[in-house]
Amino acid sequence: MDFVKGGVVAPHGFRASGIHCGIRKNKTKKDLALIFSRVPAKAAAVYTTNLVKGAPLTVTKAHLQNGMAQAVICNSGNANTCNANGIEVAEEMSRLVGSALKLSHKDVLVASTGVIGQPLDITPIAKNMETLVHNLGKDLSNGRAAAEAIMTTDTKVKEIAVEFTVNGKKCRLGGIAKGSGMIHPNMATMLVFLTTDCSISTQMLQKALSTDVQDTFNMTSVDGDTSTNDMVVIMANGTAGNPEIVKEGHAFDTFMKALNTVTVQLCRWIAGDGEGATKLLECKVTGAPDLAIAKTVAKSVICSSLTKAAMFGADANWGRILCAIGYSGAAVDVTKVEVKFASSKGEILVCENGAGVAFSEELAKKILLEKEIDILIDLHDGEAASTAWGCDLTYDYVKINGDYRT
Amino acid sequence: MDFVKGGVVAPHGFRASGIHCGIRKNKTKKDLALIFSRVPAKAAAVYTTNLVKGAPLTVTKAHLQNGMAQAVICNSGNANTCNANGIEVAEEMSRLVGSALKLSHKDVLVASTGVIGQPLDITPIAKNMETLVHNLGKDLSNGRAAAEAIMTTDTKVKEIAVEFTVNGKKCRLGGIAKGSGMIHPNMATMLVFLTTDCSISTQMLQKALSTDVQDTFNMTSVDGDTSTNDMVVIMANGTAGNPEIVKEGHAFDTFMKALNTVTVQLCRWIAGDGEGATKLLECKVTGAPDLAIAKTVAKSVICSSLTKAAMFGADANWGRILCAIGYSGAAVDVTKVEVKFASSKGEILVCENGAGVAFSEELAKKILLEKEIDILIDLHDGEAASTAWGCDLTYDYVKINGDYRT
Repeated sequence: MDFVKGGVVAPHGFRASGIHCGIRKNKTKKDLALIFSRVPAKAAAVYTTNLVKGAPLTVTKAHLQNGMAQAVICNSGNANTCNANGIEVAEEMSRLVGSALKLSHKDVLVASTGVIGQPLDITPIAKNMETLVHNLGKDLSNGRAAAEAIMTTDTKVKEIAVEFTVNGKKCRLGGIAKGSGMIHPNMATMLVFLTTDCSISTQMLQKALSTDVQDTFNMTSVDGDTSTNDMVVIMANGTAGNPEIVKEGHAFDTFMKALNTVTVQLCRWIAGDGEGATKLLECKVTGAPDLAIAKTVAKSVICSSLTKAAMFGADANWGRILCAIGYSGAAVDVTKVEVKFASSKGEILVCENGAGVAFSEELAKKILLEKEIDILIDLHDGEAASTAWGCDLTYDYVKINGDYRT
Repeated sequence: MDFVKGGVVAPHGFRASGIHCGIRKNKTKKDLALIFSRVPAKAAAVYTTNLVKGAPLTVTKAHLQNGMAQAVICNSGNANTCNANGIEVAEEMSRLVGSALKLSHKDVLVASTGVIGQPLDITPIAKNMETLVHNLGKDLSNGRAAAEAIMTTDTKVKEIAVEFTVNGKKCRLGGIAKGSGMIHPNMATMLVFLTTDCSISTQMLQKALSTDVQDTFNMTSVDGDTSTNDMVVIMANGTAGNPEIVKEGHAFDTFMKALNTVTVQLCRWIAGDGEGATKLLECKVTGAPDLAIAKTVAKSVICSSLTKAAMFGADANWGRILCAIGYSGAAVDVTKVEVKFASSKGEILVCENGAGVAFSEELAKKILLEKEIDILIDLHDGEAASTAWGCDLTYDYVKINGDYRT
């Protein structure tokens, strides 16, 4: 498998665009994205488990009932959630795209991200639909424009693609994501749009996606808040020409590997670019009695405000990690726990058999001053392992969220 | 019931002291507290549910097996947790107090708070035991010294007492607490020491305490991190002379009310003085189908980092509250939810039937700039109600926890 340039336009047969339409006041910030497959694509999605669901999710779910889609429209700057007319506006977004692209509006998926509870004015979207469609293209710049248009407080554009081979045919899978805040996906995720030209049945596509998110987006947290508008969508347009993947086996495994390569990178970027974050934290748990315990422990550590603040301060305060393991709810024998910190500057053991060991504070500081920190936890109680991604808790997280609406 | 001066020394027959013994480097900060009842007292306690438990909790639990105690020693600056020799050191603390006060060491309870995973040196405690015991007294200043000595990053001393009447006899109940960080009690709590001169059986005392914490300390959160050293201890020495409370009924209800009055105030102080906090948040949920739902919703809102940051910024971003209700895990009909903000400056409706309503941003700002904010949530779906206490998330929380150990 190889990394290739671009995100959603790397797979064949997909076009994208991103523009400023006026939902945001800042004219330099794009706020409307469109992804289009020139042929109808198999499509699958997973959604937030938050009981408060954004109106776009209701519309997307309805439009995906037949397992097919050809376009995704997404605006930033307004989540279109908790609004009396939300579903009406989301439906209208799909109709505008449908009529501009000569598609049934039921083949258009809809997503929104931004502030909750402020009515979304359809006017700027309607006014600029012609431009949005006119800008559709398959160049890297088109894909990047779409990736930019879905960003909220993200500081970095998140797009990635890989090329892989299925039954002798070269296939590509790419994706874009927005993360930053209100990131604590549960059985679903933040906004991620994936495309592939690999031929795969709707059923297997949904299976691949639902399986993958358990180990990727659901193991990522910025602030413990599960958003109302989380959604991952994948479209597979089959233009690579491989025999359709319709069951498990080698081809499906290859597809899963490509998908996982893309999603893990997006997770790392989402965590590392968490609101206000200065560091990516990767917590790798090994030696767990079972997978559920490994996941629970990894996620608990990544979510601990005290651990996150200690990492911001490059403080090897491993007691907070033990504390987070202890309250995680997982049945852990805390007397066996080993903890190490690692980064490009080296690795350091700080806790063994659940108790502290003497270590060089100087080396620990050097390791923890890096931008990517591994927290390595060995439970010494089995073979299961899991990884979770998070970020540090910083002044800027507070600053960004102390007055988000203005 | 009347509030009276003092904390643990307000009830008759209790003495207290607090000194600087040298566990902390800062000589102006007291770090060792002692509470003593001149007669053996009935005693009860609840402990953290964190699987990583401080050594002092193991020792206190063992010493409380007979339901009696006569003294509590507590140090700050070091949690004596995750240390190979922790239990030995905690036992030694009880022996030192026992021999200085001519008590069995099994009548001495032990608590510690501070950094996890650094061996606690018994030397400064042993060296200063004579002074600690010599300083025992029943004056307000003695009680305050003990309250000061258990503080960590707390900025305010927390002590309170009430006077109430049981079967014609005046009784008193008082308490001190330390809170600040790593505060998210679960079936237990942070460090709280309560005393009463009311006569009550060990069984009813434990029942009163275990019942009360469900609605008080377990509904309080500063940062979502459940500490390893949480403990609430209550001692009842019976010197008020009332007939011993041995069953439910009017006298027990009166006792419960006194206990609840003290613990609710301590919870409000602990939340309002959370690490870095500038505001106390009180989330009152009404109209819930059952108590479990009311509690889950109230706790979820209080724990949301995004809601806490919005309150720091006095931003009426109620969408985050709906979001926190939605991901709480409670079965809520989100289309019925009503949200109001209130403070001494007034009350403002911001959400009705799960959707936003027009409101004055100016008035909302005025309300939210106060130091004590009520978040009033009516689920309009039943009669159950619950209250939770928390605080805002601020730059100073990050600052304090970015480098706690230095």
